[in-house]
Amino acid sequence: MRRVLMALALTVLAPALSHAQSAADLARGATDTKRVLNYGMGYNLQRFSPLTQIDKQTVKRLVPVWNYSYDDNRAEESQPLVYNGVLYVTTHAATMAVDAKTGKQIWKTKVEYPPETPRIVCCGIINRGAAIYEGKLFRTTLDANVIALDMKDGKELWRSNAIDWKTGYSQTVAPLVADGVVITGISGAEYGIRGFIDGWDPATGKHLWRTYTTAAPGEPGGDTWQGDTWQRGGGSTWITGSYDPEQNTVFWGTGNAGSWNSNTRKGDNLYTCAVLALDPKTGKIKWHFQFSPNDFYDYDSVAEMVLADINVNGQPTKALMNANRNGFFYVLDRSNGKLLAANQYGKTVTWADGVDERTGRPVDSDVTKKLRDTEQTVEVWPGAMGSKNWSPMSFNPRTGLAYANTLNFGMKYTPTRETYRAGATYWGADIEWVWPQGPRGYLKAIDPLTGKSKWEAPSDIPRFSGVLSTAGGVVFTGKLTGELEAFDADTGEKLWQFQTGSGIEGQPITWEQDGVQYVAVSVGIGGVYAIFSGDERLASVPAGGSLWVFAMQK
Amino acid sequence: MRRVLMALALTVLAPALSHAQSAADLARGATDTKRVLNYGMGYNLQRFSPLTQIDKQTVKRLVPVWNYSYDDNRAEESQPLVYNGVLYVTTHAATMAVDAKTGKQIWKTKVEYPPETPRIVCCGIINRGAAIYEGKLFRTTLDANVIALDMKDGKELWRSNAIDWKTGYSQTVAPLVADGVVITGISGAEYGIRGFIDGWDPATGKHLWRTYTTAAPGEPGGDTWQGDTWQRGGGSTWITGSYDPEQNTVFWGTGNAGSWNSNTRKGDNLYTCAVLALDPKTGKIKWHFQFSPNDFYDYDSVAEMVLADINVNGQPTKALMNANRNGFFYVLDRSNGKLLAANQYGKTVTWADGVDERTGRPVDSDVTKKLRDTEQTVEVWPGAMGSKNWSPMSFNPRTGLAYANTLNFGMKYTPTRETYRAGATYWGADIEWVWPQGPRGYLKAIDPLTGKSKWEAPSDIPRFSGVLSTAGGVVFTGKLTGELEAFDADTGEKLWQFQTGSGIEGQPITWEQDGVQYVAVSVGIGGVYAIFSGDERLASVPAGGSLWVFAMQK
Repeated sequence: MRRVLMALALTVLAPALSHAQSAADLARGATDTKRVLNYGMGYNLQRFSPLTQIDKQTVKRLVPVWNYSYDDNRAEESQPLVYNGVLYVTTHAATMAVDAKTGKQIWKTKVEYPPETPRIVCCGIINRGAAIYEGKLFRTTLDANVIALDMKDGKELWRSNAIDWKTGYSQTVAPLVADGVVITGISGAEYGIRGFIDGWDPATGKHLWRTYTTAAPGEPGGDTWQGDTWQRGGGSTWITGSYDPEQNTVFWGTGNAGSWNSNTRKGDNLYTCAVLALDPKTGKIKWHFQFSPNDFYDYDSVAEMVLADINVNGQPTKALMNANRNGFFYVLDRSNGKLLAANQYGKTVTWADGVDERTGRPVDSDVTKKLRDTEQTVEVWPGAMGSKNWSPMSFNPRTGLAYANTLNFGMKYTPTRETYRAGATYWGADIEWVWPQGPRGYLKAIDPLTGKSKWEAPSDIPRFSGVLSTAGGVVFTGKLTGELEAFDADTGEKLWQFQTGSGIEGQPITWEQDGVQYVAVSVGIGGVYAIFSGDERLASVPAGGSLWVFAMQK
Repeated sequence: MRRVLMALALTVLAPALSHAQSAADLARGATDTKRVLNYGMGYNLQRFSPLTQIDKQTVKRLVPVWNYSYDDNRAEESQPLVYNGVLYVTTHAATMAVDAKTGKQIWKTKVEYPPETPRIVCCGIINRGAAIYEGKLFRTTLDANVIALDMKDGKELWRSNAIDWKTGYSQTVAPLVADGVVITGISGAEYGIRGFIDGWDPATGKHLWRTYTTAAPGEPGGDTWQGDTWQRGGGSTWITGSYDPEQNTVFWGTGNAGSWNSNTRKGDNLYTCAVLALDPKTGKIKWHFQFSPNDFYDYDSVAEMVLADINVNGQPTKALMNANRNGFFYVLDRSNGKLLAANQYGKTVTWADGVDERTGRPVDSDVTKKLRDTEQTVEVWPGAMGSKNWSPMSFNPRTGLAYANTLNFGMKYTPTRETYRAGATYWGADIEWVWPQGPRGYLKAIDPLTGKSKWEAPSDIPRFSGVLSTAGGVVFTGKLTGELEAFDADTGEKLWQFQTGSGIEGQPITWEQDGVQYVAVSVGIGGVYAIFSGDERLASVPAGGSLWVFAMQK
């Protein structure tokens, strides 16, 4: 009899399970420690977990529990998702479901794309991850398709083309599902694209809306572009936005304007190098904040817009934080886009003397003034990779600190004037890196309101991995030379590391299953620094993609 | 003053270090637990280590300490060597030196070969490892070159071509250095080659001798071939021989005769499917023992000829053991090739009714008689992959048992008559696998003198990894589905496993460094079973090559 009741109970539960990953599930974020349903470990992109089994002491006992080969030798920048004991992972070439306990492949669905596609991908043949919602997995492809797969078996359910990749567009972004809409960005600002953000119907793949990131004449901001430059003005949207369900607002960063030589496109060039607050149902812009108007230096503002409720001047504040590529750490009031703080966090910043507190605009330094006036070579810091690249930081609400992999190198910058040709590169500058004496990168524990570091963990070869922090007081990140690392969140002391065999640019996550806290990360060298730095020390780091899962040895 | 003395002492020591890997070093084999200088963990190919830190209890605490990516998606069948804290490893495409403690690449030298070469490689684009001697590393290439690299920096010192690969020859074998000679074998019996073993000068690469494995007319054994069939008679030599320094004899197995249909080449076909006892300085054959005369079934006898001093009928005996592909376990007196025991160890053997104790010849079963008489389809066990393939076994002198990955599946065999064309396949039979009810493979603990198992650990998908056993009472091996496994040497109880991310066909080794016992294995799916079995369960095992190193967590 008891058995029959059990069976009945299961039958009743089954429909509930099949309706999983509801809007409410997604909104729970990392507070649901058994799942990782969101890129960024939560709609707030905090990459913070309340789990404490792995702490400052126990982390020393962390060991791999399994590895899964991606059969891929490209950069692995993707963040895994976890749902009911299954990891969902992506590469540029495949989507995979892997049993979280054993590492056994459940299904693998190849992503076919035209072999010529990589020629319009500037900075790595990669993918950054998936979104899941109501039994479907959503991802983007290098040839600019958004696809939905059945989470059970990996079968393709729908495929919607965003735009013709041959004109320089590509997609690597992990989608965001907000208010029942699949939202995706686009890449290609180095190919003279016009950036946008798209909304799609998760059930059918129907295109719901498009919001362009360069304003056309007659639209608000349309007067910030010279002539027809808005048509090829860049403003890519290649990193997933954050979402505040309470305000029903999506916060999505926009990339550099194109071409880089901003003397060819005078004006602020809205909405490049900005954050857009969007209505997820319509894509309508609620407000915007532009970090780097008329940007010369490739200072994309795509990187994560982290949401947190913090105290500012004693006031509980619904904040948005961004460690901007331009070297300044911004805190905005996310309800209205008002600037609350903007302080230098990059070690060396010479392009601007600061950010005007009232206007939120950077104050051009003599270097930038000279560049605007003479259009001649200047040395400027940070270089085009910024004081921090796309590698996502973590905000730990317990310590109040943002843990970010920061960069410290400059460039000799020579603006050029290029003719636009569809599908060809449209850089607009020649650059030569200027390296510092000493480390090129630091993992920093940054006070968001001052930009100052509580501690810094240097690395000669800069880190390009995502950062994860936990209530156990541990900060996880990785090196391009393969070490997955754990630091003391309070002191920056290195507590543990493990050599994973290739370079790490992935985004570590953590979750709990059957009483065990796991940490996972994708490993595989490549990406912007490996491609463009010329750093010969990386020549001895082998390619090869795989997924690692760690836990404490019993 | 003390410091000056230290400096002097180091100066005096330095020349000694540079003369490392002498003949005496190589002869020490696994008794030198700090190094792994030989393929097979010693000239005796016992793959037994006297190390005991990892034992039946502590093995449960074994964890990966690092991983190194091969940036390769082919089968990884290579055995690493260890010398002074450095692992030396090979793939078909590269030779690598990796720091044993950190997993950092010290050097990597690519192996270039013509892109058409793989068409003459039957059973996997692979390499099985290197030999080291007097500061040089020796390896073979798919296009049949023997090369020497400087162990310090990987620079190529010499390259000697064995033979024109276009006529069907290839090399995957790990060389053997014996009595100051580099000895290599050859692959290609499925392409109508004439097999041989070569001797090379380690200093210069000069060719010293060649011993053919098919006897020409007028030579001893020349009368065992019909017409000119000896010219394309097979007899590959693709697995490294063993060496007895005391007797100064090399024991090298020879492969199947070609084409498979032995009615086309009546006679014993010496020296195919045999073991040759060779003088390493001259290649002269001291004695031979043929396991499968006039072989129909692809029963290569290349697999490891393990040397051990054991008691046979109460007599201390210098034995040679071979778990032959034909299903029988042979023990010979290695001083003269006399048969001491030949008993069935394969689970199902139908091609022969046994081995004649006096003559050492197999007794044809009715199946084989029918095949010889009618040249019609027969069902025969074991299939062409044998009761054990090349995957090397381990002999543990403490337990007196041989630990071997054995196979249990048959074939429907239809002989064909093929026309020889240089560089084309020359199979001589069509086969269809016949699968058993139940497991297709067993790791067996075999009594060499009876062929009986003390225990058996089944695997639905048969294991193709090498086996390692230790004085700690542990037996290591791996599965094609990625698990590195440890068993109790006495009971067969599974003690531990770790999922390595791709399939295992590598050859595990162990050594000690700074008081820590390490275990290493190459991982990466492919090889003969993955290629030819049609086993759909392997479709979900991802490709991807890497080197794993394990130790006990502190």
